[in-house]
Amino acid sequence: MAKNIAILGASGYTGAELVRLIDGHPEMRIVALSADRKAGQPMGAVFPHLRHLDLPVLQKIDAIDFSVVDLVFCGLPHATSQAVIKTLPDTVKVVDLSADFRLRDTASYAKWYGKEHDALDLQKTAVYGLTEFYRDDIANARLVAGTGCNAATGQFALRPLIEAGVIDLDSIIIDLKTGVSGAGRSLKENLLHAELSEGGHAYAVGGTHRHLGEFDQEFSAIAGRDVKVQFTPHLIPANRGILGTVYVQGDAQTIHKTFEAAYADEPFLEVLPFGEHPSTRHVRGSNFCHIGVVADRIPGRAVVIAALDNLTKGSSGQALQNANLMLGLGETTGLMAAPVFP
Amino acid sequence: MAKNIAILGASGYTGAELVRLIDGHPEMRIVALSADRKAGQPMGAVFPHLRHLDLPVLQKIDAIDFSVVDLVFCGLPHATSQAVIKTLPDTVKVVDLSADFRLRDTASYAKWYGKEHDALDLQKTAVYGLTEFYRDDIANARLVAGTGCNAATGQFALRPLIEAGVIDLDSIIIDLKTGVSGAGRSLKENLLHAELSEGGHAYAVGGTHRHLGEFDQEFSAIAGRDVKVQFTPHLIPANRGILGTVYVQGDAQTIHKTFEAAYADEPFLEVLPFGEHPSTRHVRGSNFCHIGVVADRIPGRAVVIAALDNLTKGSSGQALQNANLMLGLGETTGLMAAPVFP
Amino acid sequence: MAKNIAILGASGYTGAELVRLIDGHPEMRIVALSADRKAGQPMGAVFPHLRHLDLPVLQKIDAIDFSVVDLVFCGLPHATSQAVIKTLPDTVKVVDLSADFRLRDTASYAKWYGKEHDALDLQKTAVYGLTEFYRDDIANARLVAGTGCNAATGQFALRPLIEAGVIDLDSIIIDLKTGVSGAGRSLKENLLHAELSEGGHAYAVGGTHRHLGEFDQEFSAIAGRDVKVQFTPHLIPANRGILGTVYVQGDAQTIHKTFEAAYADEPFLEVLPFGEHPSTRHVRGSNFCHIGVVADRIPGRAVVIAALDNLTKGSSGQALQNANLMLGLGETTGLMAAPVFP
Amino acid sequence: MAKNIAILGASGYTGAELVRLIDGHPEMRIVALSADRKAGQPMGAVFPHLRHLDLPVLQKIDAIDFSVVDLVFCGLPHATSQAVIKTLPDTVKVVDLSADFRLRDTASYAKWYGKEHDALDLQKTAVYGLTEFYRDDIANARLVAGTGCNAATGQFALRPLIEAGVIDLDSIIIDLKTGVSGAGRSLKENLLHAELSEGGHAYAVGGTHRHLGEFDQEFSAIAGRDVKVQFTPHLIPANRGILGTVYVQGDAQTIHKTFEAAYADEPFLEVLPFGEHPSTRHVRGSNFCHIGVVADRIPGRAVVIAALDNLTKGSSGQALQNANLMLGLGETTGLMAAPVFP
Repeated sequence: MAKNIAILGASGYTGAELVRLIDGHPEMRIVALSADRKAGQPMGAVFPHLRHLDLPVLQKIDAIDFSVVDLVFCGLPHATSQAVIKTLPDTVKVVDLSADFRLRDTASYAKWYGKEHDALDLQKTAVYGLTEFYRDDIANARLVAGTGCNAATGQFALRPLIEAGVIDLDSIIIDLKTGVSGAGRSLKENLLHAELSEGGHAYAVGGTHRHLGEFDQEFSAIAGRDVKVQFTPHLIPANRGILGTVYVQGDAQTIHKTFEAAYADEPFLEVLPFGEHPSTRHVRGSNFCHIGVVADRIPGRAVVIAALDNLTKGSSGQALQNANLMLGLGETTGLMAAPVFP
Repeated sequence: MAKNIAILGASGYTGAELVRLIDGHPEMRIVALSADRKAGQPMGAVFPHLRHLDLPVLQKIDAIDFSVVDLVFCGLPHATSQAVIKTLPDTVKVVDLSADFRLRDTASYAKWYGKEHDALDLQKTAVYGLTEFYRDDIANARLVAGTGCNAATGQFALRPLIEAGVIDLDSIIIDLKTGVSGAGRSLKENLLHAELSEGGHAYAVGGTHRHLGEFDQEFSAIAGRDVKVQFTPHLIPANRGILGTVYVQGDAQTIHKTFEAAYADEPFLEVLPFGEHPSTRHVRGSNFCHIGVVADRIPGRAVVIAALDNLTKGSSGQALQNANLMLGLGETTGLMAAPVFP
Repeated sequence: MAKNIAILGASGYTGAELVRLIDGHPEMRIVALSADRKAGQPMGAVFPHLRHLDLPVLQKIDAIDFSVVDLVFCGLPHATSQAVIKTLPDTVKVVDLSADFRLRDTASYAKWYGKEHDALDLQKTAVYGLTEFYRDDIANARLVAGTGCNAATGQFALRPLIEAGVIDLDSIIIDLKTGVSGAGRSLKENLLHAELSEGGHAYAVGGTHRHLGEFDQEFSAIAGRDVKVQFTPHLIPANRGILGTVYVQGDAQTIHKTFEAAYADEPFLEVLPFGEHPSTRHVRGSNFCHIGVVADRIPGRAVVIAALDNLTKGSSGQALQNANLMLGLGETTGLMAAPVFP
Repeated sequence: MAKNIAILGASGYTGAELVRLIDGHPEMRIVALSADRKAGQPMGAVFPHLRHLDLPVLQKIDAIDFSVVDLVFCGLPHATSQAVIKTLPDTVKVVDLSADFRLRDTASYAKWYGKEHDALDLQKTAVYGLTEFYRDDIANARLVAGTGCNAATGQFALRPLIEAGVIDLDSIIIDLKTGVSGAGRSLKENLLHAELSEGGHAYAVGGTHRHLGEFDQEFSAIAGRDVKVQFTPHLIPANRGILGTVYVQGDAQTIHKTFEAAYADEPFLEVLPFGEHPSTRHVRGSNFCHIGVVADRIPGRAVVIAALDNLTKGSSGQALQNANLMLGLGETTGLMAAPVFP
């Protein structure tokens, strides 16, 4: 019997992406969609590409009957998310797509998000949602915290290397190029077409991006010591896609073998042949992540490049993958659609 | 039992799109892929977005064993297509994506394509592949001729109106805006990113575009008299998508009602509420076509706007829809994936 | 001696474009820049591409000493513009880039802009700013009303034809494709990169675009009778550029000759050889307008296509051209820079 | 009296950019344009954005009378360039835009370009064309070798720091994002709009890009020891612009002060306030280069980001700047036009 799904914050890009993916999922049924300011509108008015679907009308959260809901995807803004989730009945499983439950350490949360956490009890029970590395915990969790899309990209390119001890931990540099949909559907001058197209720029330069909190937490936990990476994100004129160029010190062949071993059975993580490297265009609209390793001309240096779609593998696809596990469904169900190119 | 499928000319965009769509089709299995110059390469080398799929290696056409093939999609260039199709065994059904069998009249073919047809017997048996209007014939055909993508767009916006006699036949103007993938993966200066991005231009101005042959044939057949439309295509900097703005003389409300009646049961043709009009972005990657009707301020004039994805509904999706009918499968099987936005 | 220039509303795209153009003008000097909400900021903070210039700090309008100003470019929003301009001293010449003084008829203004005009005396003195057709009046005017950018495109493609009586007046259709900067730097969802890139759509369909007020006024005046055109603008993913595809009934060769005669001495209006047609990419960043004429396959029909840069010839470049005339300077001064391609 | 200029290889993007810039130069006159395969065509047919200019028809090189030419810009492909330049009369000054004379060491040339140099005598006399650092030599040179556009970007971001000894020399990483026009107007599949738009990818990963030859030569010469940087270029969907993100170890404030001191009198090199960083969009179409310095959260690390237009400051603008010096003209003549934004 199909599981009943509610999506909170369905008027954003991650909400729409969830609807798109779940439409192709044979064991899930959307029973409620919320959008505060757009309550009362049909989803097809807010996102005309979904107009052919038979979907519930958007409503306010407090109008939803959660007693019939098996799992909630929560795509609300940071801070709002924690306030809402703590009011949900215990019977409902939750996949949160916000940043509210990603950081286990309360001081770290306060530092990166500029406020104290309001749902500390919940925070303790949340599982970090990088599926490939927290599979068992996720399967047993009531609350899973979706990772940052940049954080996911960097971790796919680094976790097995740190785990295996094949790279230097003090010289890691992550240079990220990201499409614009990661910034959401918000009205900001720098997200206008005329401001963003036909060029590139960095943002959050110098180690100020909040996803660093996730890198610090995860990489330090794996290494068993403090690990601090250097991380510079850039915005490029594409709607979807993150390309992470990661500079590491270590033997490139060993690094490549480490990925091949670690990801051998992963359905969504594709390790390219040694020396090849990916393009974001080849994962667009899909849950796949392509990873390449190239040796640099400087001995002992390697470049790891990872590409994924920020809205799918970096956010809503990951969320669905986690929900599948939490609901006892096949992990890849509804997620195997091939990328859309060109 | 799954049907065995071969795709000829698999190294082009329509070939790749067919592979993407068939990957999500539960009753088809790809048993052969051809590409002349790239024979011997794996499909994932030619199209890295398909690298995770278990596909046959690209081969030359004469190396394919057609005795095990149920249906061939032929994505070869014009003229080559007819030469190849006439050599295929009769047991194989064929969906041709080229222009070779679209025009029933041999003189018309010669006029628009600049050469005599080399497979006149076959041409007589071919069914024009605009599914919604040739459904029964397609279901019984051995050879179906996929329509031009521009021709499909214009016909979705006009056929019911001509059929119902609700518009003037001598003042139809089709102004089309098309994405670049319709021109294929060919190396032409005007398809380079630096030449094409950040602007717009018309092409084949003045009534020289070959898809006019299809408009003339189809519209005249429906009307029972000679109908000649004015048609100007434009290239815009988008990879996928055709927006057809069609200027007609007739009552807008009547026109809208005519569409609603004609397309009421069509799974892929979405008639928008009166006064609304579509965007190509909302059909991207899907087999849907959105159609809107707006009354102009000048009494007796209306604007019909249709949007579809040239690679899907305009080409490979249409081809799969036809193949489903020809093989006795459900018409929408493998084609219901929602559009990818943004 | 250089003329003293003030730009009101300098924080928008047309303001920035004026600064860029005047920087290359040997006989003008910017003495004041206004921006209400951004008063106090240097122009280089609002537009970093102008950071190397020695410009006045942005200030509020009432802080400007207009007694030393020779000419004001007014880039304020509609309605605000008329309120401000009527307070300026008579000694200051004014080029208004808003829509406030384009329509001579007060009822027409009220109809298209939804309010009564607040500066009727001024409106009577304003000259319509389509330089090539109002040159003498502009040279003698105190207040010139810059035209709409779409309105300019359509008029360049039609005025000589209506004047010469070589086309049918009741079947004119203008299908326009415009870049996004024409919509300004305003925060609207449909102007976000993720909403606008990779596709096309129409807007103001059915004859609701305000620039129709200008078409009606001008074409009717030339023809000496009521002329109503059908006009559909479309947004394409480009920052600059308008491509106007104009469908007319008349003899194409005669039409082409009419343009050649009418524009023979125009420094910015380039008539292409018969049968050729333009691209917006070839006028980008410049004050040039390219115009092509093609005969349609249907006898007696022709397609006129005009391309210009909405921010330059369509707005700020036109404004500077008019200012040159008003100040007794050479009409082309500061405006001859070649387009930027690619 | 105006200097007589010839441009060889005028049918490429750098050739067209030179024509655009020289059109605004009061002391240069183009007397010859060459294009081998397009000889006989007017420049306006090859580049319609230049159609309004009165330019010589394209001709073959051997048809040019070099006795009346003061300076030649040579935009021919690598290897062809050296073959042609060695046949030019000594009376003609030459600015070469190819890679043929950039590397002083013949072994280094052979290594990076895969062949022996055919004009060794000329190579010895060539001056490296990074204007700001070879000004005097350039002023006295007969042959100046234009730098690689990536090489220019990296050097603007690093030379003063290496010179001043304020960064570690063994940990420099240059991560570059470049627009597509740098690849020229060549017909390659990966430069097609459908392949390139809407995404990002790296190329020449691992230290194989030829511009590394320039980095090695220049940085080692400044440092007085062998310096090898790690360099990864990426292609982003923009026509113009290079963004170089440079990771260095050193004190960020010191680094910023070093730039401010080194570039204080440079007309085209703009050092942004400490902590700010540039966008390629703000230098588009201009000869300016914007440079920013940000301190990383990891003590002792800094990020230097430089942005320039590859066709202007990275190529044709630099060439004109050098030509001005070689001809005794003002260095900035014809180069001060402000960037075109948006």
